[in-house]
Amino acid sequence: MTPSLDDVLAAAQRIEPHVHRTPVATCETLDRMAGARLLLKCENLQKAGAFKARGATNAVFALDKASASRGVCTHSSGNHAAALARAAALRGIPALIVMPSTAPRVKVAAVEAYGGRITFCEPTLAARESTLEAIVASTGATFVHPYDEPLVVAGQGTCALELLEQAPDLDVVMTPVGGGGLASGTCITLAARAAGVRFVGAEPASADDARRSLELGRLVPSEDPVTVADGLRTALSRLTFGILSRHAEAILTASEDQIIAATRLLWERAKLVVEPSGAVPLATVLAHRERFAGLSVGIVLSGGNVDLDRLPWPAH
Amino acid sequence: MTPSLDDVLAAAQRIEPHVHRTPVATCETLDRMAGARLLLKCENLQKAGAFKARGATNAVFALDKASASRGVCTHSSGNHAAALARAAALRGIPALIVMPSTAPRVKVAAVEAYGGRITFCEPTLAARESTLEAIVASTGATFVHPYDEPLVVAGQGTCALELLEQAPDLDVVMTPVGGGGLASGTCITLAARAAGVRFVGAEPASADDARRSLELGRLVPSEDPVTVADGLRTALSRLTFGILSRHAEAILTASEDQIIAATRLLWERAKLVVEPSGAVPLATVLAHRERFAGLSVGIVLSGGNVDLDRLPWPAH
Repeated sequence: MTPSLDDVLAAAQRIEPHVHRTPVATCETLDRMAGARLLLKCENLQKAGAFKARGATNAVFALDKASASRGVCTHSSGNHAAALARAAALRGIPALIVMPSTAPRVKVAAVEAYGGRITFCEPTLAARESTLEAIVASTGATFVHPYDEPLVVAGQGTCALELLEQAPDLDVVMTPVGGGGLASGTCITLAARAAGVRFVGAEPASADDARRSLELGRLVPSEDPVTVADGLRTALSRLTFGILSRHAEAILTASEDQIIAATRLLWERAKLVVEPSGAVPLATVLAHRERFAGLSVGIVLSGGNVDLDRLPWPAH
Repeated sequence: MTPSLDDVLAAAQRIEPHVHRTPVATCETLDRMAGARLLLKCENLQKAGAFKARGATNAVFALDKASASRGVCTHSSGNHAAALARAAALRGIPALIVMPSTAPRVKVAAVEAYGGRITFCEPTLAARESTLEAIVASTGATFVHPYDEPLVVAGQGTCALELLEQAPDLDVVMTPVGGGGLASGTCITLAARAAGVRFVGAEPASADDARRSLELGRLVPSEDPVTVADGLRTALSRLTFGILSRHAEAILTASEDQIIAATRLLWERAKLVVEPSGAVPLATVLAHRERFAGLSVGIVLSGGNVDLDRLPWPAH
């Protein structure tokens, strides 16, 4: 079921004690480069380092006592897993996480630091799903999907609620688009609270299944794309595709080089550690300057979890 | 003349249109490691990437019209130079900057980006001073010292004004100590506005001239120390030594390895790009945990200007 603004407002109240109201940063240099006014919503400074804390916390704290006591589980290569492990720890329930054996070291360490119990599997969707099913069958844990879940989408929608309060004169809001949870939560909030503010999604050109899905009017699967924006490799779900089809003005893309350059700009000029997935909207604005000239653009810097031993640009 | 709280309040009003009210960040992981509650005042997100924008802007906008028209000048290897160039550009007057030929590439680029006119000199204090004197003699520009200047100290004191509003229950405030401008501005604000909040300075153990000066009760010169915290190599001035002698509870130190580790923690866990000088207070808290156990500690992350091609830790 598609979440409504009421679901987003309920989520905001439910998660308020457990997540940060993240600041909005500005940077003259980036504004000059973009020819636009950029309002950077710093979800890289969110608990567990990404917006995923919002949706995961909402899903965990919405569970009734009996379900909660059996724990929660998910499959995720990264930020959603850490966020779910953190939320479960806050509620004092188990978090059972299926991760591909190829998951980045720092993302594994984050899940472990929050007390999540990890089961590794082959890095295929089939292996993830069968491993997860076995866990659900043996434990009765509730599966919290990273984005095909109304409570998660409603939780992600709370980010735009804050942004609209913090930056009241926006023309456009942009988020990265992976599975579409953040993007569709943002759309729900904008449509109900600020109908004049458009939503534009941002995707790597090499992982543009969402752009193609919206153009073709049907869900295009993601075919294991290669991109530095490792959080954006997943495809939309039926839920998020439906919401984005109704509300997104467009999905625009940026190249790998543009994503890496935008990541570096955020570190160097905005002094914010943002992971490449979180830099895709900035990369996209800079790659499509004519489209944003003179506008006030809200940009969600979606996460900041990177391995400092493996920077996205070459070492000198 | 030692600035008063009134001077700090006047500075706050004067610079308000030109600088950021920077956010205060928190990080559960760092709190756990420190055994204290850390309130991180993000001056790395300040205009021009450091608290120096406060003092420099105050000094430039306090000038009368006639003096202003002849421009401002300074010698500085870094953040003060960029901040002064930016403030001068905002007021539409020239900024003449003497920099050592060894100044980091990114810091030179920042001064140039703000339109500052650079004269390079040998990397000695004598060469800096004689080069600057020649510029003053030929142009009539006003010398804005990086810290031995009441208007600059008053400007730096505005950071603590904001911090006290943003984090009302502090036990201690810590800043790095280089020339002592930020430290002494902070002391003035704390003494007048929050007498129960102590001030502790943080210095590299290998550049601990301020600690020794306070212990001996006389100004100890800085003897060209080697430290990764390149903003903290300068010695106190008579002005800042006087203020710190009256108000600082202590100056504590951290080793080079501890400073590098704290810098990396801020990037990795707090997602904030902080330069090593700005990580010295965190390094110091972690090196002296017993002293801060259970306290609320305001920490000024003083700047974020780093060369991403020369990270302070070894590449992998």
